[in-house]
Amino acid sequence: MIDILDRVRNKALHAKIVSAQEAAELIKPGMNVGTSGFTPSGYPKAVPLALAERMKEHPFKINLYTGASVGPELDGALCEVNGIDKRMPYQTNKLLRNLINSGEISYSDLHLSESAQLLRYGFYGKLDVAIVEACAITEEGNIIPTTSMGNTASFVQQADMVIVEVNTSQPLELEGMHDVYVPLDPPHRLPIPIVKANDRIGTPYIPCTPDKIKCIVPCDITDKTRPFGEISEADHKMSEYIIELLQDEVKKGHMPKNLLPLQSGVGNVANAVISGFVDSDLKDLSVYTEVIQDGMFDLIDAGKLNFASGTALSPSPDGLKRFYENIKEYRKHLLLRPQEISNSPEVVRRIGVIAMNTAIECDIYGNINSTHIMGTKMMNGIGGSGDFARNAYLTCFFTASTAKNGLISSIVPMCSHVDHTEHDVDIIVTEQGLADLRGLAPRERAREVINKCAHPDYKPMLMDYLERAEAATKHAQTPHIIKEALSWHEKFMETGSMK
Amino acid sequence: MIDILDRVRNKALHAKIVSAQEAAELIKPGMNVGTSGFTPSGYPKAVPLALAERMKEHPFKINLYTGASVGPELDGALCEVNGIDKRMPYQTNKLLRNLINSGEISYSDLHLSESAQLLRYGFYGKLDVAIVEACAITEEGNIIPTTSMGNTASFVQQADMVIVEVNTSQPLELEGMHDVYVPLDPPHRLPIPIVKANDRIGTPYIPCTPDKIKCIVPCDITDKTRPFGEISEADHKMSEYIIELLQDEVKKGHMPKNLLPLQSGVGNVANAVISGFVDSDLKDLSVYTEVIQDGMFDLIDAGKLNFASGTALSPSPDGLKRFYENIKEYRKHLLLRPQEISNSPEVVRRIGVIAMNTAIECDIYGNINSTHIMGTKMMNGIGGSGDFARNAYLTCFFTASTAKNGLISSIVPMCSHVDHTEHDVDIIVTEQGLADLRGLAPRERAREVINKCAHPDYKPMLMDYLERAEAATKHAQTPHIIKEALSWHEKFMETGSMK
Ligand SMILES: CC(C)(COP(=O)(O)OP(=O)(O)OC[C@H]1O[C@@H](n2cnc3c(N)ncnc32)[C@H](O)[C@@H]1OP(=O)(O)O)[C@@H](O)C(=O)NCCC(=O)NCCS
Ligand SMILES: CC(C)(COP(=O)(O)OP(=O)(O)OC[C@H]1O[C@@H](n2cnc3c(N)ncnc32)[C@H](O)[C@@H]1OP(=O)(O)O)[C@@H](O)C(=O)NCCC(=O)NCCS
Repeated sequence: MIDILDRVRNKALHAKIVSAQEAAELIKPGMNVGTSGFTPSGYPKAVPLALAERMKEHPFKINLYTGASVGPELDGALCEVNGIDKRMPYQTNKLLRNLINSGEISYSDLHLSESAQLLRYGFYGKLDVAIVEACAITEEGNIIPTTSMGNTASFVQQADMVIVEVNTSQPLELEGMHDVYVPLDPPHRLPIPIVKANDRIGTPYIPCTPDKIKCIVPCDITDKTRPFGEISEADHKMSEYIIELLQDEVKKGHMPKNLLPLQSGVGNVANAVISGFVDSDLKDLSVYTEVIQDGMFDLIDAGKLNFASGTALSPSPDGLKRFYENIKEYRKHLLLRPQEISNSPEVVRRIGVIAMNTAIECDIYGNINSTHIMGTKMMNGIGGSGDFARNAYLTCFFTASTAKNGLISSIVPMCSHVDHTEHDVDIIVTEQGLADLRGLAPRERAREVINKCAHPDYKPMLMDYLERAEAATKHAQTPHIIKEALSWHEKFMETGSMK
Repeated sequence: MIDILDRVRNKALHAKIVSAQEAAELIKPGMNVGTSGFTPSGYPKAVPLALAERMKEHPFKINLYTGASVGPELDGALCEVNGIDKRMPYQTNKLLRNLINSGEISYSDLHLSESAQLLRYGFYGKLDVAIVEACAITEEGNIIPTTSMGNTASFVQQADMVIVEVNTSQPLELEGMHDVYVPLDPPHRLPIPIVKANDRIGTPYIPCTPDKIKCIVPCDITDKTRPFGEISEADHKMSEYIIELLQDEVKKGHMPKNLLPLQSGVGNVANAVISGFVDSDLKDLSVYTEVIQDGMFDLIDAGKLNFASGTALSPSPDGLKRFYENIKEYRKHLLLRPQEISNSPEVVRRIGVIAMNTAIECDIYGNINSTHIMGTKMMNGIGGSGDFARNAYLTCFFTASTAKNGLISSIVPMCSHVDHTEHDVDIIVTEQGLADLRGLAPRERAREVINKCAHPDYKPMLMDYLERAEAATKHAQTPHIIKEALSWHEKFMETGSMK
């Protein structure tokens, strides 16, 4: 068995070390299970794999609550045995997505800042068990998390019993990189006293007691983070447009020379955009974000990023290696917080974050669809995009102007599903250009979006729609031809092309 | 001339007292003008009327920024002479609405908590002039507001010049009822230190200096508040459903016996719902809201409401009379704050507001349209509904299940415009019943909404749509038949009925 004795610093707890199989036996059908993990980082691995084995022999289901997406040993393994009934609050797993979109799994797609408090409020039922990946357990029974914070602290607080996976693949130098703060709930909640990205307000461990820990499982399976796609010409352009805008904002006196704290979303585009900052002359930057991807390491290495606060490390496999190898240096610049704090509307608005997230599609008026392909099939979920978009100083969305080799226009007359309304969207960027929607009314927004962001193949069609919609509604606030508003999606589904 | 000498306590300022006509001369074509006023309360009257007279003779336009809607002497009078080019952030005036929906006025419909900061950030251009209704001006040149706070403090801070209308119809007892706090902007902003509805954090006046005050205009025109409709049987039912739910939440331990601070939206339905609390056995209530309507006075009179914090008094004409007559008593229970604070996401989430707002329509998945009739024509605006809905402890929307004598179902397959997404909506109430959407995935939400809230005339049609959409999408996360999703609206526009 993997030796974790020196990582379990409370000697009495050594008696609770069991195998993953024994731990998995504690999980009963229908239980509400909360786990650590946010992106494929810091999620439990051994116990879920053992649980999946059990389910294979005696099929049953649990309800799974996490921080966000998790790795294949959890979402993947449980889906393979059809072991999930309800799932919240975010996911990116292909198999899970299929089960969600075939009615097998009941999926609550939630604002990530809200998921822990919804559970604490009692709206998601009682949490039966928390399964938590740890670097170590202290004398007092406190838990040192690993590569993500997510909702783990609240799950530990709320669960009837706690199962800890001590993962020896996670370096002990992670200790001290966390800032754990669980707000009280109304009517007792107090201000969250963060005024800049590197403020520490909590403890470097998840408060717990030895008796709350039901058992401890050794594990040495590594985080299965995922590689990013190549940074394309289009990504480069988007990055350039936004940097140009931000430099202009500095010139106009709208923000300080070192900008305001950056937030950057999940996925390829977001990572590529952040990477572009390396080549700019911007410096002394700070980041207040959800996930810390490779681009942030580049910025630290380039000496441009002073500090990044997030809730999870979300690098590529290479990025994770690089982080582990230079952890002593990187930890000076990084802090992981509960997602309730990394995504806190209170803090995001106070410190004035510049929010940069990716859209699936946006419409001419600046509404954004982040989640539903053709209005019906769940892609991933809203994640933290709403937490940031609603409260940021400046809210930017990025998307390539087309998808599926140009057969889909990502700029459409009307979004087939709305996650962010026009009220929340300042800037839209595609490889075609940047639309600045601040201070514009819908009819003006539409012209800006079409002219700056649409692909040339679709620009005339969009302008034609807008003009006919204006005529049909006699220039109403938000012109639409209701009969035609979703016809582009219809056409794609019927013919395989929006053209 | 109306005698305001004793209300202008700085004697040197007496020299700046001028007529409304003289003051109006200061306003030039194309200027950005910010005024006091939130609902038809506390808005300037004499200067706008004089300005409208000027515009009648020499047509020109200004950009008008307010707190929210204002009275007929401002929006109404300026619209009659087509004197508005851009308008933000909210309105309820019929004439103005028509000009917005005929392409004459460029209307930015904004979250009310954001409008002042967007101006301070520089995103809405430079503010040329602030026109502010006051009770009095202090020795130091500070301004005592009247029946609303709105964005006035930020307008005074940002404007090149300030015109003060001292209104003698506003009782001096209003002094002390305001708590003026303008946050610093990022990167200097600090926590807003409110932890309960009655916390005072600012000054009882709007900070100003004598030299910033360009001129002072006497006025005695009263606030033109509007009567509420009769409270209907349907309103009563909605009120009963929500009170029953809240009592149940108390029993479940989800909230304290005296609930959490209530927020209640604008309009008839919201006022009626709050009135219903008078007959309940709930007590020691507090209110943290935007507008204080008649129902709140009823609750104070009944000894059930300890304290109400808002940004505006928004009573009926009778309610206003009642308030003036008992101001000494009411002022013990009331406080007016800048709308940035009354609607602050930070505070709303911290203190755990119960948000109750009215929808125009909602769809089966719980998305809400608060603003656009048939997806295109602006009704009023999103107002503060997003500030509260996104951040509340419990987010409730109310609407009659049908409109226009049953020819429109307010529950539709897909909203024709989305202001609040399913992520933000916990509870939907119609006279038919209450749908509790917490913890439900979209397919489950749809059944709850249809079964509990839809009118019997439309229930089978909605269920038929849902079932066919499920079949067509093979039970996707959010089943829709894109071709049909907006067909109910189409049908209404073509035939005058959704049936
Ligand atoms: C929107 C989101 C899916 C984009 O991810 P990404 O990796 O940057 O984007 P990609 O361009 O690779 O697109 C992802 C997929 O969506 C498809 N897609 C993109 N635009 C599309 C459109 N308009 N219509 C249909 N499909 C589209 C792509 O083709 C691709 O499909 P594939 O996986 O079958 O190849 C992702 O950012 C997301 O889930 N966002 C929501 C959560 C969020 O914003 N979190 C931020 C937290 S702070
Ligand atoms: C939604 C809102 C318009 C409802 O106002 P209300 O006075 O309670 O509602 P009413 O039932 O009187 O409806 C208002 C009008 O909308 C019409 N209407 C209502 N539902 C409709 C629907 N589904 N389709 C078309 N029209 C509809 C009504 O017929 C009525 O029209 P009329 O003025 O021509 O008679 C109002 O609450 C609002 O503007 N809300 C947005 C801002 C907000 O929520 N602020 C809260 C701040 S904290």
